[in-house]
Amino acid sequence: MKIKNVCILGAGTLGSRVALQAALSGYKVRIYDINPTALENSKKTMAKIIDQLAKGTGLEESAGMNAIDGIVFTDNATNAVMDADLINESVLEDIQVKNQVWEMFGQIAPEKTIFTTNTSFLLPSMFAEISGRPAKFCALHFHDVFYSKVVDIMPHPGTDPDLVPLLEEFGRSLEQVPVTVKKENHGYIFNSMLMAFIGAAGKLLTKEIASIEDIDKSWMVNFHMPMGPFGILDSIGLDTAWHVTKSQPDAASQKFAALLKTYIEAGKLGEKSGEGFYKYPKPEYRNSGFIS
Amino acid sequence: MKIKNVCILGAGTLGSRVALQAALSGYKVRIYDINPTALENSKKTMAKIIDQLAKGTGLEESAGMNAIDGIVFTDNATNAVMDADLINESVLEDIQVKNQVWEMFGQIAPEKTIFTTNTSFLLPSMFAEISGRPAKFCALHFHDVFYSKVVDIMPHPGTDPDLVPLLEEFGRSLEQVPVTVKKENHGYIFNSMLMAFIGAAGKLLTKEIASIEDIDKSWMVNFHMPMGPFGILDSIGLDTAWHVTKSQPDAASQKFAALLKTYIEAGKLGEKSGEGFYKYPKPEYRNSGFIS
Ligand SMILES: NC(=O)c1ccc[n+]([C@@H]2O[C@H](COP(=O)([O-])OP(=O)(O)OC[C@H]3O[C@@H](n4cnc5c(N)ncnc54)[C@H](O)[C@@H]3O)[C@@H](O)[C@H]2O)c1
Ligand SMILES: NC(=O)c1ccc[n+]([C@@H]2O[C@H](COP(=O)([O-])OP(=O)(O)OC[C@H]3O[C@@H](n4cnc5c(N)ncnc54)[C@H](O)[C@@H]3O)[C@@H](O)[C@H]2O)c1
Repeated sequence: MKIKNVCILGAGTLGSRVALQAALSGYKVRIYDINPTALENSKKTMAKIIDQLAKGTGLEESAGMNAIDGIVFTDNATNAVMDADLINESVLEDIQVKNQVWEMFGQIAPEKTIFTTNTSFLLPSMFAEISGRPAKFCALHFHDVFYSKVVDIMPHPGTDPDLVPLLEEFGRSLEQVPVTVKKENHGYIFNSMLMAFIGAAGKLLTKEIASIEDIDKSWMVNFHMPMGPFGILDSIGLDTAWHVTKSQPDAASQKFAALLKTYIEAGKLGEKSGEGFYKYPKPEYRNSGFIS
Repeated sequence: MKIKNVCILGAGTLGSRVALQAALSGYKVRIYDINPTALENSKKTMAKIIDQLAKGTGLEESAGMNAIDGIVFTDNATNAVMDADLINESVLEDIQVKNQVWEMFGQIAPEKTIFTTNTSFLLPSMFAEISGRPAKFCALHFHDVFYSKVVDIMPHPGTDPDLVPLLEEFGRSLEQVPVTVKKENHGYIFNSMLMAFIGAAGKLLTKEIASIEDIDKSWMVNFHMPMGPFGILDSIGLDTAWHVTKSQPDAASQKFAALLKTYIEAGKLGEKSGEGFYKYPKPEYRNSGFIS
């Protein structure tokens, strides 16, 4: 089967990015959200991304704006899924909400539609049954779409194996590097490794072995990277990081989660709130003198 | 006190690099090894590094060769430590060997000499007493010296606190970024994080969640890095990685250590033996097509 029409559920951070890349790659795209304001903001976000891409990659601004104009933004579910070959779902990371969404779209989607979810830490098997078409259900998990161009393809035990190569091809057509997660795993591939090294950084901090700055410097200088674990946490958002850390069973994670909570209670959510481990928009680690 | 004369113990991979950087930074350097062949090879290694630096950083070849010519290479311990303000020890990573070395140098070194060890996974408190001058004993741990320019300063509970700023200054004079490990910790700062994310990669592989290539791709593309965890393991050496992994108490590490052992038994030690997870000198991950 050939994918032509793509339906994106959820017009937030990630849904907007996947929808935009799909439109740029020539797909017919419809994006759905229950919240009309989210749809309005989504269009603005896309325009901003096009602006950045035009500056950074030489994409033609007009081609980018045409891609946005071709996208249908809608809060009407039936309209959204009309003729869809593939759904990629990016609604709130909440089991209840995702269950509701998949139950509804399982009923109204055309028979041909492939179902994919972008969940970060849940598993496709949690929604496959309620969608009514487990064999056509698979995780298709993007990262940042425009900067980190990896897409994880993670089937659940009941996924039709033929879906995997088809989704790999689809991922490549969106300019992503497809990687396959052969067995269901919370956090796919990269996030498992990211959580492990960020957990180690958290442990160094809560055990008072080293300072935030020295931990970040060690990572940045050794790996020639623009930020270390605490800079990365600020960009992920300390609220999201807290949710993930809190769900780990070990004592070190619980201790780090408790520390993250003190930041959150002080209104320090990271870059988005202006302060986390560092102060934004000019965090210390971006000063040329930081690494010396 | 002002450090002028530096004595390096062990003329292997790391000792040679620290000695060379110290000479380039204007210190008077003596390097000691029990093995005369190691001393000969050390001089050759230094010449190779100067050649690379001349090509890569614009260092003047003649200045580099002069620095090497100024270094005293010796298998005579008394001669090596004569007038030393600071010893940095890089002998074999073996408790027995390091104990012998520190016991001897504790007896023959001038009273003023500061004692530092480069041990990767042991702790300074293991050698402080036998050296006879625990207050002057501290870990001063380099990484690669020329590519990864971080130096960890890790006192043990008995180290004179005034030593820390002095070693920070010394580290900076060697063009390194100094970071302080406030409490003794196996693996300092960076190696703790490195081991955590490599352990997570090992777990993804032994649990058959993803392939070597897909794990490396995920890391490389997300972080825009030239290699992933298995490429890094090949460059560290699978024998070294096995020693460290085997010493971890958890079941996942034991399982990964067992996998590493099958490679080692097949003669696959990584880049140095021509094969590890990848084949050298042209590993797959360096092909432009790898990430697609
Ligand atoms: N942000 C990322 O970097 C990222 C990366 C990978 C995966 N994800 C995953 O993508 C999903 C969305 O994350 P996000 O960061 O874009 O969140 P977000 O909060 O920015 O957007 C979520 C959107 O879902 C909408 N929504 C809520 N309930 C809905 C419903 N019943 N029907 C339709 N829309 C509904 C909200 O109005 C909102 O616009 C999550 O599962 C997350 O784990 C996010
Ligand atoms: N290679 C690295 O990247 C690296 C990085 C940081 C720290 N280290 C640490 O530095 C130390 C040395 O590592 P390396 O990789 O250079 O090892 P290496 O095997 O290349 O060199 C060790 C040297 O010690 C010499 N030696 C052995 N016994 C001795 C003795 N009794 N007296 C004097 N010399 C003796 C050997 O002849 C050899 O030349 C270890 O403690 C290691 O953990 C290594």
